[in-house]
Amino acid sequence: MAGTTPQPHSRTRSWWGWGWEDAHPDDAECTAMGALIPGTLARPLPVPRVRDLGIAGPAVEAPRSLAHLVTDDPGDRAAHAMGKAYRDVVRALRGRPGRIPDLVARPTDDREVADLLEWAGERRVAVVPYGGGSSVSGGVEYRGDAHGAVMSLDLTAMGRVLEVDAEGRAARIQAGTLGPSLEDQLRPHGLTLRHFPQSFEFSTLGGWLATRAGGHYATGRTHIDDFAQSMRVVTPAGTSSSWRLPASGAGPSPDRLFLGSEGALGVITEAWVRLQARPRHKASASVAFARFDDALRAVRALAQSDLSPANCRLLDAGEAALSGAARDGSAVLVLGFESADEPVTARLDRAVALARSHGGRSGATVGASGASGASRADAGPGGDAAVSAWRSAFLRMPYLRDGLARMGAVAETFETAATWDRIPGLIEAVRTEVGAAALKATGHPATVNCRLTHVYPDGAAPYFTVLAAGRDGDEDALWDDLKAVAVEVLHRHGATVTHHHAVGRDHRPGYDRQRPEPFALALRAAKAALDPHGILNPGVLVD
Amino acid sequence: MAGTTPQPHSRTRSWWGWGWEDAHPDDAECTAMGALIPGTLARPLPVPRVRDLGIAGPAVEAPRSLAHLVTDDPGDRAAHAMGKAYRDVVRALRGRPGRIPDLVARPTDDREVADLLEWAGERRVAVVPYGGGSSVSGGVEYRGDAHGAVMSLDLTAMGRVLEVDAEGRAARIQAGTLGPSLEDQLRPHGLTLRHFPQSFEFSTLGGWLATRAGGHYATGRTHIDDFAQSMRVVTPAGTSSSWRLPASGAGPSPDRLFLGSEGALGVITEAWVRLQARPRHKASASVAFARFDDALRAVRALAQSDLSPANCRLLDAGEAALSGAARDGSAVLVLGFESADEPVTARLDRAVALARSHGGRSGATVGASGASGASRADAGPGGDAAVSAWRSAFLRMPYLRDGLARMGAVAETFETAATWDRIPGLIEAVRTEVGAAALKATGHPATVNCRLTHVYPDGAAPYFTVLAAGRDGDEDALWDDLKAVAVEVLHRHGATVTHHHAVGRDHRPGYDRQRPEPFALALRAAKAALDPHGILNPGVLVD
Repeated sequence: MAGTTPQPHSRTRSWWGWGWEDAHPDDAECTAMGALIPGTLARPLPVPRVRDLGIAGPAVEAPRSLAHLVTDDPGDRAAHAMGKAYRDVVRALRGRPGRIPDLVARPTDDREVADLLEWAGERRVAVVPYGGGSSVSGGVEYRGDAHGAVMSLDLTAMGRVLEVDAEGRAARIQAGTLGPSLEDQLRPHGLTLRHFPQSFEFSTLGGWLATRAGGHYATGRTHIDDFAQSMRVVTPAGTSSSWRLPASGAGPSPDRLFLGSEGALGVITEAWVRLQARPRHKASASVAFARFDDALRAVRALAQSDLSPANCRLLDAGEAALSGAARDGSAVLVLGFESADEPVTARLDRAVALARSHGGRSGATVGASGASGASRADAGPGGDAAVSAWRSAFLRMPYLRDGLARMGAVAETFETAATWDRIPGLIEAVRTEVGAAALKATGHPATVNCRLTHVYPDGAAPYFTVLAAGRDGDEDALWDDLKAVAVEVLHRHGATVTHHHAVGRDHRPGYDRQRPEPFALALRAAKAALDPHGILNPGVLVD
Repeated sequence: MAGTTPQPHSRTRSWWGWGWEDAHPDDAECTAMGALIPGTLARPLPVPRVRDLGIAGPAVEAPRSLAHLVTDDPGDRAAHAMGKAYRDVVRALRGRPGRIPDLVARPTDDREVADLLEWAGERRVAVVPYGGGSSVSGGVEYRGDAHGAVMSLDLTAMGRVLEVDAEGRAARIQAGTLGPSLEDQLRPHGLTLRHFPQSFEFSTLGGWLATRAGGHYATGRTHIDDFAQSMRVVTPAGTSSSWRLPASGAGPSPDRLFLGSEGALGVITEAWVRLQARPRHKASASVAFARFDDALRAVRALAQSDLSPANCRLLDAGEAALSGAARDGSAVLVLGFESADEPVTARLDRAVALARSHGGRSGATVGASGASGASRADAGPGGDAAVSAWRSAFLRMPYLRDGLARMGAVAETFETAATWDRIPGLIEAVRTEVGAAALKATGHPATVNCRLTHVYPDGAAPYFTVLAAGRDGDEDALWDDLKAVAVEVLHRHGATVTHHHAVGRDHRPGYDRQRPEPFALALRAAKAALDPHGILNPGVLVD
């Protein structure tokens, strides 16, 4: 939903930065944060205004038959020009956003999506599918000039849960449904998708599916992929509707081709997704480690056990300090268990014992709630506080990032995944090489922190935070340079260019090197077959 | 391994029927089995002989540079003419097998696979990739006459575990490795793949990956798909080698395109697969149900619980009787738990209690072994016996099927999957309509049994066994008619044409109806890009 078309009773979305306008740090907060990073500005850059962009009229006009679905309002167009990566925020702050789409369309059903695609194909108008707009990899903007006009296809007018199969724990849900609304609509049925990416408030089911989003679970079924029971995708070559099946072995999975297709093969309009009973039992704890290597071994042992923690996030010392989980130089492992069936404290106790056996300390059961809703606060030193500090920081982080961007700082994250044999060397190399590159470029030392967000029996997903001085007026180019250093390290360590943030346009160089060439041939051929005019999200995945 | 080229110290594989020659039922056993099915022959059809086929010389000759990889031995060629479906066995018994391949090639590395494909492409020789040859859906034969010659590409000379990453629990394994050899090579490392399809002895890793095989686990990660960490696939357009990653969100998964590609897009030559510690704790039990509907509800509750049984197979009354698990008209649920970490008897007890709460009876812990290897035989009525009777029958079943085929009976299985809302009606309709069709065609009542082999929170995989009189000399055509009736029922109930037996050529009609048309366009385009001369396993998946 664009910031310039506020809904009744709703807060206003920021057109240029993360989330809600009223949640942004104010100038004083920005200044205080900036003071923590050497080499940043003395006062914040002003909040950018749409009217300063001097947006020209649209290069194309929708036909009368589609006019009711389309707007050329400048504010709406500006809000759909980019996603919400650090480099997007900087470009907005610096008054040079990505290409402004000529039109924003809001279809309300499959037929309207098909009609819009048909018209766009005839006119060679580029179509950029848009869910919550929270892409952090350049997934929802247009780059280049191969198309005379660009239309942002905003799916949020398709935001309903259409059917619930309570017995089979599944629901048919429109792609434009935002996270909170999706859970609100499922709640009366006692069911939940439990897909809670950091972007939960500002991302949609369709966006999650199109980008293979990572969600709530730190182990097991970590990506939305496994929760897609069937999908409906409108392509220029027709509508693909897979059958609702719990599993199938009939040829390569049709859904798996569209999962991660990032709008390049079609527009996901709805899906049946697998749901769960709402958990009645929860327990969490934190375990501190003096040595990060011990913590890595503990996490690997947990990932290879039967325990299946829902949350199993390891913060390195810097990340623990930044989030307030620990300030003594410890790494902190945040563990959480949940179940709809039975109490989970025994599993938590076993997990904490396992972590202790690898050198963890001060592990304690810090919060457990049973069906009654009663909770026990059996907090060891720093326990409960560490978990909740981490949670609040997690949700607040993107707002703070934007505040730091206003101070001219570099404040961004990136994430990856690799097998266990690569993990220690990979993390060390990212810290060292990205840190050195930032120092060289800015003359100031940078902070490079790491956490593991998802863990597997065969590897883990490290997530890095970089805080550094910027380069006044040129912060996005500086970040691009630092990211290129990071991608080079990832490539050298056989680590994927993204574990759950999609390829978009920003990750194309790394993706193109990583992807097997025969698969690229197949993907290009599939794209040409489904999108013969090349109008769908040009530039993501393939050219 | 072809039956006509016995390896030292090995038993002889049957060229025409399942498994080992010495495990086939003899004439007396066949006659006794046949007597149980009205309308079958009085004495068994003779065991077919290769020399009676009058195999002509090959239509093509390999070039000198590849001659050492290729044989035109008639026995070897006959053994590679078909898979091991009932209809394949009947065609062999009746002296009219599928088209005999002109050559059988046994490459020993990727380069040799690529060289063979290059030559075949130049000469437009059809190439049928062949692992253990256990296809039951016409996956390893050639039909039609669009190609002047056919080469079976037998991968079993590539049968080694090449690397083991014990820390990350993964191994790099050549595609032609047969199940027992794969586990034998992993055992010294204390690791296991635990993929145990019914065909385990006679199928290969490459075959499992190419067909999205279903394995050991009845819940959770049921298919080989989830155990593929990376894959290497030789295509006519180059070799695809995906990175070893625990997870990735970078575009549609390359591996998921090749998983289930059935040799139509390339030849899988090796894969890194995810392994597990060998289980130290096991426990199993059986629970009987007077009413099948109660059993269905119990199984659904189990599938939706946290319990994750490794085995959770529900036999209907007929299947329970046939396998000796129960002879009193009860349905029988066979439950098994296993863990490398901790005792599983508590989980088994909870599962049995849950089953009892849905009307199960005589549930008992029937076998539990701890790390010591000690086992407790706490068998309730029929318990231990039911489990082991079912296990032996499971492995013996394909041999008995061939014995019944020699008696002119129809004896075949097929399987599917559907959401829970469809399951009761689907099973009833298959029983009724396939039974009626068999009666009408043969004048004799048929047996149509059902078991659930895999269960999910959102559905289940029913597996049907059909035993009926045949039609002397025409049993395969009769079976095709019955199968067409079955596929019609599946289609009407939104049930997949196969849950884990692949599409091959036999399932094409059902598959073509089920597959979304835009996905078919994409798949055809991918095929044309990777296999421009159309030589790879022509007729499977796409034309």
